[in-house]
Amino acid sequence: MLFASDNWAGAHPAIASSLVEHAAGYASAYGTGALDQAVDRKFSEIFERDVAVFFVATGTAANSLSLASVAKPGGIVFCHRESHVIEDECGAPELLSGGLRLFPVDGPRGKIEPDALKAAIGRFAPEFVHAGRAAALSLTQATEAGTVYTLDEIAGLADMARGAGIPVHMDGARFANALAALDCTPAEMTWKRGVDLLSFGGTKNGCWCAEAVVLFDPGRAKEFSFIRKRSAQLFSKARFISAQFDAYFRDGLWLEIARGSNTMAQRLAATFRASRNARLAWEPQANEVFAILKRTAAERARHQGAVFYDWHPPHNLAADIGPDEQLFRFVTSFATTEADVDRFAAAIG
Amino acid sequence: MLFASDNWAGAHPAIASSLVEHAAGYASAYGTGALDQAVDRKFSEIFERDVAVFFVATGTAANSLSLASVAKPGGIVFCHRESHVIEDECGAPELLSGGLRLFPVDGPRGKIEPDALKAAIGRFAPEFVHAGRAAALSLTQATEAGTVYTLDEIAGLADMARGAGIPVHMDGARFANALAALDCTPAEMTWKRGVDLLSFGGTKNGCWCAEAVVLFDPGRAKEFSFIRKRSAQLFSKARFISAQFDAYFRDGLWLEIARGSNTMAQRLAATFRASRNARLAWEPQANEVFAILKRTAAERARHQGAVFYDWHPPHNLAADIGPDEQLFRFVTSFATTEADVDRFAAAIG
Amino acid sequence: MLFASDNWAGAHPAIASSLVEHAAGYASAYGTGALDQAVDRKFSEIFERDVAVFFVATGTAANSLSLASVAKPGGIVFCHRESHVIEDECGAPELLSGGLRLFPVDGPRGKIEPDALKAAIGRFAPEFVHAGRAAALSLTQATEAGTVYTLDEIAGLADMARGAGIPVHMDGARFANALAALDCTPAEMTWKRGVDLLSFGGTKNGCWCAEAVVLFDPGRAKEFSFIRKRSAQLFSKARFISAQFDAYFRDGLWLEIARGSNTMAQRLAATFRASRNARLAWEPQANEVFAILKRTAAERARHQGAVFYDWHPPHNLAADIGPDEQLFRFVTSFATTEADVDRFAAAIG
Amino acid sequence: MLFASDNWAGAHPAIASSLVEHAAGYASAYGTGALDQAVDRKFSEIFERDVAVFFVATGTAANSLSLASVAKPGGIVFCHRESHVIEDECGAPELLSGGLRLFPVDGPRGKIEPDALKAAIGRFAPEFVHAGRAAALSLTQATEAGTVYTLDEIAGLADMARGAGIPVHMDGARFANALAALDCTPAEMTWKRGVDLLSFGGTKNGCWCAEAVVLFDPGRAKEFSFIRKRSAQLFSKARFISAQFDAYFRDGLWLEIARGSNTMAQRLAATFRASRNARLAWEPQANEVFAILKRTAAERARHQGAVFYDWHPPHNLAADIGPDEQLFRFVTSFATTEADVDRFAAAIG
Repeated sequence: MLFASDNWAGAHPAIASSLVEHAAGYASAYGTGALDQAVDRKFSEIFERDVAVFFVATGTAANSLSLASVAKPGGIVFCHRESHVIEDECGAPELLSGGLRLFPVDGPRGKIEPDALKAAIGRFAPEFVHAGRAAALSLTQATEAGTVYTLDEIAGLADMARGAGIPVHMDGARFANALAALDCTPAEMTWKRGVDLLSFGGTKNGCWCAEAVVLFDPGRAKEFSFIRKRSAQLFSKARFISAQFDAYFRDGLWLEIARGSNTMAQRLAATFRASRNARLAWEPQANEVFAILKRTAAERARHQGAVFYDWHPPHNLAADIGPDEQLFRFVTSFATTEADVDRFAAAIG
Repeated sequence: MLFASDNWAGAHPAIASSLVEHAAGYASAYGTGALDQAVDRKFSEIFERDVAVFFVATGTAANSLSLASVAKPGGIVFCHRESHVIEDECGAPELLSGGLRLFPVDGPRGKIEPDALKAAIGRFAPEFVHAGRAAALSLTQATEAGTVYTLDEIAGLADMARGAGIPVHMDGARFANALAALDCTPAEMTWKRGVDLLSFGGTKNGCWCAEAVVLFDPGRAKEFSFIRKRSAQLFSKARFISAQFDAYFRDGLWLEIARGSNTMAQRLAATFRASRNARLAWEPQANEVFAILKRTAAERARHQGAVFYDWHPPHNLAADIGPDEQLFRFVTSFATTEADVDRFAAAIG
Repeated sequence: MLFASDNWAGAHPAIASSLVEHAAGYASAYGTGALDQAVDRKFSEIFERDVAVFFVATGTAANSLSLASVAKPGGIVFCHRESHVIEDECGAPELLSGGLRLFPVDGPRGKIEPDALKAAIGRFAPEFVHAGRAAALSLTQATEAGTVYTLDEIAGLADMARGAGIPVHMDGARFANALAALDCTPAEMTWKRGVDLLSFGGTKNGCWCAEAVVLFDPGRAKEFSFIRKRSAQLFSKARFISAQFDAYFRDGLWLEIARGSNTMAQRLAATFRASRNARLAWEPQANEVFAILKRTAAERARHQGAVFYDWHPPHNLAADIGPDEQLFRFVTSFATTEADVDRFAAAIG
Repeated sequence: MLFASDNWAGAHPAIASSLVEHAAGYASAYGTGALDQAVDRKFSEIFERDVAVFFVATGTAANSLSLASVAKPGGIVFCHRESHVIEDECGAPELLSGGLRLFPVDGPRGKIEPDALKAAIGRFAPEFVHAGRAAALSLTQATEAGTVYTLDEIAGLADMARGAGIPVHMDGARFANALAALDCTPAEMTWKRGVDLLSFGGTKNGCWCAEAVVLFDPGRAKEFSFIRKRSAQLFSKARFISAQFDAYFRDGLWLEIARGSNTMAQRLAATFRASRNARLAWEPQANEVFAILKRTAAERARHQGAVFYDWHPPHNLAADIGPDEQLFRFVTSFATTEADVDRFAAAIG
């Protein structure tokens, strides 16, 4: 009943084992070994085009360096008001990009609303030295609200960015969960819809530590290599990331894990729909479920060992929550079992 | 015969296995789990005092964030001219510290000479707004030249720093090798000799990826936690580092590995001493050996599969190298075998 | 009829003349000359306590370096949503502070609303490494909306900051106008109400270029001197700023100019109140007037040579502006004459 | 007898008067007024091509923003070991460029030696992510040693930079003095010899505060405008700089002042040549004179009111200074008179 976060789980056995399997023997350092190169090729294969891949240590690093690579003096990055990059990264994007400013854009359920983006972009057009200037759009897929942009929505927002002359970054900390939800290809969810660079996260989906920046324009790779190194994000034994991704991609493990987590999230959702002590705040689409519970039910579950976080309600939801109710977040992972969910269902009643 | 670098080796089997062992089950994220806490306590035990420990992704990160934590506007960091922090970190210390300047100090064989440090510090005393001001001393132990500061040398340089009112950082990317060489305790080599904060490296000594900053003043921990996060260096599943350190420290494995690498370095040194085609550039003390080889011998060994790097000779050595000779670096690790060394010995003749 | 900005005026004759008067003869550089020291003392006299004064080049510099001096990793600065620091400084505060984040707080007519500040501070309490942490409150006096915080309002907001353990910065680009409006002493409007450091602006009030940071805790002066120099804001011939401030403070010239500008603003306001083609958006309190004009009237005035800026209406006002109307900003200065205002009144009808 | 620095003088009367002359009347702000545009055109005329001109507050700002405009992650700037940018700017270039590293290059008498530059550039070629990469060459003209690069020397060093694919910056804090010394045109001393961007200083040559960055490629102007603003260096009443440059350039005043200062420096030099208590450290070429004086003579002059700085002898000179001697620096300016020099000559004997 540990629904605190997908980063509370350890590593999928296949991924942990891969680290033993590749432990022996030598490989040239800094990502130039045979396994590293094989994984690089695998990324290009998965994305159906030549991509440049850069491992980094954390999702925050992937986002921050992605944005650093498109930074310019006075630059403004448009992101959702509740996005990880603005809410949970302690100023890393600003520091590592040399001073980009993150501009919060509104929209229900974690998704940027096109009109809101249009207005936000409009504030910085034409370019005006005092106000700063548009530098990038950052989308989160799946969102922090456990929802998923449709392919059309991605294309629509990306078109707006393109019209403003700025690149599109996708924060894919839960990329696999979104992909599983949409049941499309990685290419369709990214560059085919106008995404220029991607934070590709494996950690939340069963890896120990496997995050990468994927550049759909490999021509920018050389510049990025310096950005990464001078941000202290270049692993020497990069093989330990490659070994994880090698197992991750083998036989579609990554999608299998993501589908599993999503299924567990749906099972949780069904629990909330069925409960008289709880209701869904909105429909989950990936592996995060937001629900409004009676405080007494939540306490009961916690006494029985359930772990999940209180959640700050978005603006538009706050009024809808009664005084004896509260909003909570529940996250599933490869480690979540049906038994977990069912025991939790029994606990809340 | 792969002597390119200690980061060409993978992971020691015990360390890789630990990642499998701890893969199952939940743990709270960001370094707050039971194993994380046990490893924290282990560090305090090893250093014989309460220390604050912060895992980071790379040695460059450990150095950069250590220095960032003692930064001040206009700050100058004194380091050896050949130190990793100034030669091999692509400006990460400057970026992550908000603009510290690294000031190279000379000294033979990778070690800062006391007189040179005194002169360097003197340039910035009294404090003068145009020139900047002293901010820290950074020592590398073992040095980039494969030598080791004696305890008295550390104490002497640290006293000088103390006299100038600045803290002492130790870059311990090869900490265990130095410790094994001096056969002293970790406390004796650090805070008992005036070191304030330490980059503690495990990666080069048999881990996959295990680097930490150790603060001997735990009162600075809270501030450091923000420095680390906003530099994108806070691992979510910190357990994967803890699992490595858990095995690393168990039954003295870390020192056993270091002693082994040092022994292999001595075996290599003996080879060079005995060869008519090679000579030691200076006596190795840890796991790096610098030797001057006849070019023909070096080529021969490389043809037989040996890998080792050309090395830029330090100023004072250049004149001593004949036209048919060249300086090379050889690094040993847990993966180096006696057979490797002996085969190499045969190759150079 | 040039109401574009108070920085369209040149310099008050007395201030320009002072630059001639002090041009001859030598003075030690970097603010250590006799005139510099006299001006320093004058600031302490004006503020009724020992203060440390640092000249800088621009209002943006004064704000940015003030905030830089209270920065911390992951730090958040609370400021009004329409404040200069967030709207008009192109990321300078972020760059020069090493990555502070500006957090917009709402409130009508340019003034931070206490409840909104409380909520904003509450988001970052208790300190949480992911979200960042409160670092400072920045108030603008007079505000960008031409209004003025009362002394009680300043004290109330400053108390809230104090309760959160953060210092209070005042952006006083139009400090004199606010002072004239409140008819209080500089001490009453600042440190006696909890302000810790001040951007003191002279440029908009009749100087050529005279901006200073005033620290009410002179113990922080040494640190600030390095912050200023490494931000490239230390004038060599500081005397040219001192010469301006010398004239500015002589016989109360600064307050006389401010009262004059405020009076002209009131005259403009009366014009709008009397016009059938215009109405005040809100009551002006300093030297900026915001008015809603019929577009035809505005065009007529512009054809006759009037210059004033279109203004983006604050959220709460937008609905109140008819389709044939528009919001404009009018700024007065020492150069504004009654004849100017009256001619403009005639033009709009 | 005040030879401390050329920034101890105030302003040339014509320049101070210009500030009175242009004080009245309105002008659009931020450098867009008629006078600003006239001065812009004047710069293009002086340099015989279209240039983009950006006023900034200080010489340190001009250098730092010039370098910021050519910065790249991991970038290295080659400059003379005694240059202002590395010795006297407190880390501003590093901060404002987001982390460039300044790499000191040797050469006698303040001038970079071609072989030393070649070796320095060679250290960073081919590009290597750990070491960083070449980003710019910065030359100081006149140098900090009071010497002047010949046109051929500039061209030679610039060619080397061009070969390495990096732009050439000139720190022209004493540009006019160098120009007067070489008796060539501004174009010949800059872009015709391969200089890409210039810190153009007026302050040391008789202005109150007049520094500009001159870009010989105006295509980079837009980017620079954001760099300047977000570094808090955009003056609102830019007219006060334009008014100074207007007078500065009128009827060749700037060259007249520079020639005068240089002549006074030669008169000082003659004094040292003639004295039995002093000797030139090397031949002065601009308005700074370095001389080795008997300590007793220096003390005597100081007792009679002379002011001049002790100077740290360059490496190669130290051995040449006797125990009863010391190296000093003497700077002349528009305010230096023949009587000053002659009185000083009498004082030292």
